[in-house]
Amino acid sequence: MRLEGKHYRTIWLDESDAGTVHTIDQRSLPFQLDILGLHTLEDTAQAIEEMVVRGAPLIGVTAAWGFYLALLTAETGTNLTDLVHQTGERLARTRPTAVDLFYAIRRQQMALQQATTYAEAIAIARQTAEAMADESAEQCRQIGLHGLPLLEAIAAQKPGEPVNILTHCNAGWLACIDYGTATAPIYAAHDRGIPVHVWVDETRPRNQGGKLTAYELGQHGVPHTIITDNAGGHLMQHGKVDLVIVGTDRTTRQGDVANKIGTYLKALAAHDNGIPFYVGLPSSSLDVSLANGLQDIPIEVRSEEEIHQVWGWNGHHLISVRTTPRDSPAANYGFDVTPGRLVSGLITERGICPASEAGIRHLFSEKFTNQ
Amino acid sequence: MRLEGKHYRTIWLDESDAGTVHTIDQRSLPFQLDILGLHTLEDTAQAIEEMVVRGAPLIGVTAAWGFYLALLTAETGTNLTDLVHQTGERLARTRPTAVDLFYAIRRQQMALQQATTYAEAIAIARQTAEAMADESAEQCRQIGLHGLPLLEAIAAQKPGEPVNILTHCNAGWLACIDYGTATAPIYAAHDRGIPVHVWVDETRPRNQGGKLTAYELGQHGVPHTIITDNAGGHLMQHGKVDLVIVGTDRTTRQGDVANKIGTYLKALAAHDNGIPFYVGLPSSSLDVSLANGLQDIPIEVRSEEEIHQVWGWNGHHLISVRTTPRDSPAANYGFDVTPGRLVSGLITERGICPASEAGIRHLFSEKFTNQ
Repeated sequence: MRLEGKHYRTIWLDESDAGTVHTIDQRSLPFQLDILGLHTLEDTAQAIEEMVVRGAPLIGVTAAWGFYLALLTAETGTNLTDLVHQTGERLARTRPTAVDLFYAIRRQQMALQQATTYAEAIAIARQTAEAMADESAEQCRQIGLHGLPLLEAIAAQKPGEPVNILTHCNAGWLACIDYGTATAPIYAAHDRGIPVHVWVDETRPRNQGGKLTAYELGQHGVPHTIITDNAGGHLMQHGKVDLVIVGTDRTTRQGDVANKIGTYLKALAAHDNGIPFYVGLPSSSLDVSLANGLQDIPIEVRSEEEIHQVWGWNGHHLISVRTTPRDSPAANYGFDVTPGRLVSGLITERGICPASEAGIRHLFSEKFTNQ
Repeated sequence: MRLEGKHYRTIWLDESDAGTVHTIDQRSLPFQLDILGLHTLEDTAQAIEEMVVRGAPLIGVTAAWGFYLALLTAETGTNLTDLVHQTGERLARTRPTAVDLFYAIRRQQMALQQATTYAEAIAIARQTAEAMADESAEQCRQIGLHGLPLLEAIAAQKPGEPVNILTHCNAGWLACIDYGTATAPIYAAHDRGIPVHVWVDETRPRNQGGKLTAYELGQHGVPHTIITDNAGGHLMQHGKVDLVIVGTDRTTRQGDVANKIGTYLKALAAHDNGIPFYVGLPSSSLDVSLANGLQDIPIEVRSEEEIHQVWGWNGHHLISVRTTPRDSPAANYGFDVTPGRLVSGLITERGICPASEAGIRHLFSEKFTNQ
């Protein structure tokens, strides 16, 4: 997608320096467009931990590049099997909730079993990372095409008026490689001339909505309005939301959706007001090994400081200000789980299915036979 | 209640200077305890508009003092009837949602009809403001006593463990004169040795929870934890909330509750998880002239800047940082309405009643006969 008029993906190998993987530092957006170079496994792991990169699909592809960089920088005499194992262990410790991370680790580890030399391993790891990036972009494009009829149907019912979509956090192209998951149908509709308007939840504590979603929609010319996380229910009560679309970090086989903390509250409000609530996801975010998301999906608990300190722009620099009393504790749960009963459907690269085991099995039967 | 070890109310007439009404500047809390002097009607109106003072009961009492200061500073030759009328007009323009404001205006205007001289009017206005402050404090104390059994019952079911209460925004004593509305039962329980723990929603955009509720609970020694507005649903799904108590700016005769934006989302989550959801309110916040809160309660729309800019402490000063792209619009709805069907009960100064016309009529029948 476009940033400052130029086409970008979120992560790419340098064209002339095969030892550098570039990524956009999402901590600086929307205030500065900083491109970082990753050179080692540790660079990659820290980029995930520190949320230089974030979003389930992008975390997965970044981890895939982590294998490539680990192999490229391995000291002579390192045992390949050990290195591949340890690389997976390191990356698995970065963040617990997004299943794409574990999918990427497994996929690289499977692919690398074929390698007999370091040179082969490096080539395989690069091919796997590139393939995963291309697949992610294509999956997101397909999610857009499959979600598009939902917006077209609403647009047909209110000619001349915009379709109002509410989204939470950033499940945009910045969370992926291109197009985004939740945003893909929105971009698809906008690019076809369907008038859309997006209510962007700011998404405390890290403000990925107010910072990233607003930024990427603005850069692409999509009309949008930033709201607090508190406002969505009121908007839905007053007919100002036609459709909710969010992303997911992990969805279980019964359609329970782990996504950024606060998603569940919006799903409840959509349900209470008869508004469709959809989840855009590539099949890499499906975890059919789990059934009950509330019981089984691990929820990341992050630093209290993200609650106490708000990061923003003072006109010159990115700085933080404290918004709480010095001695008050805080708790920072990163995700919540929306039960499948509140989800109108899952928009995947193969089509839309109900958020249920039968629905998911119908589109992705091979995932169940592999269990 | 106590701040820095000293007992305060939120607003009081200077003991030696009858031309100065003091109030705590709530914009500086929790970082600095600044006491402001109000000298004129305009000081008072601006203190309400700029949220030096906020919270429905405190807005009401501040408006009552506005009449006193208007009369005290009236130029010779001003027509008393005109002045009383114009004072009401000015104060009514400050903020639209809290009904306590309009109650205070009507009460002063009624009382001042008895005055035949300016000296009498000044004395009446002072008596009315002082009476309203005392009544508010006593009402809040009674709300605490009536709500206390709810907490005692939960405590009895889990000996040794704290009762976990979630609250939104600040309906604490800082929103009132003393004790608070939502917080009154919590303080009553804490002071009787019942272990309590409060989940404090930070309450974007102005962070009255993270700034004011956390501060006043901390100053009184009540255990609490600050969370984002997004987190309450997750906590409720995982059994970490026993009870929700919030305040209200206006509650209709059918029990629809206008309160800080985001309250409705917490009510939905409480309902979905079988957790009781109570509203603490003095009868001055009841507006039995309205039935359907969603249709009839005016919802204040505040400045976009409150979304774009977050105010906090940089270690030395209160400053703001921008958290959004320069060109993105924002929308800032101040309140939402929670339908009575989601409210377990109203905790009033006369007891707890169902959030319904029958329930309210049972406790406050005189309000209906005056219609």
